[in-house]
Amino acid sequence: MYRSRIRVTLRPSILDPQGKAVGHAIQALGVTAVRSVRMGKFIELMVDGTTEDEARAATEEVCRRLLANPVMEDFTYELEKM
Amino acid sequence: MYRSRIRVTLRPSILDPQGKAVGHAIQALGVTAVRSVRMGKFIELMVDGTTEDEARAATEEVCRRLLANPVMEDFTYELEKM
Repeated sequence: MYRSRIRVTLRPSILDPQGKAVGHAIQALGVTAVRSVRMGKFIELMVDGTTEDEARAATEEVCRRLLANPVMEDFTYELEKM
Repeated sequence: MYRSRIRVTLRPSILDPQGKAVGHAIQALGVTAVRSVRMGKFIELMVDGTTEDEARAATEEVCRRLLANPVMEDFTYELEKM
């Protein structure tokens, strides 16, 4: 069993209106040190698999086919043996 | 300038219907190795600050006051000097 921690982020060239809105809210709170905000998704999977390669293959297939939109998003992940 | 990478996750005791739905979609794709799915948010901040302590303080204030709901969510973050 592996835990797979996935981050799905917008590609740098893609506008992020949600991040802009959160950035304005942060300024309104009075936290002036924050320069920019980008929003993404975080997904944690528990993956069966006796080897790291099996867990890696399942994670990448799920990211490519379901979790990330390849036109506008990138994904990264970390595996941890449980 | 620091980059702050924040993960906001539901507390373990909180039901995650979105994660359940994604889990069903993964099974429907035929990826049977995935046992469970938990959905969260990923936020990347660029934070002004000459010291790591300043960046850490701004990040934690924003998480506590805006990004995470303390009743049902936890947050973790990593700082990286740019």
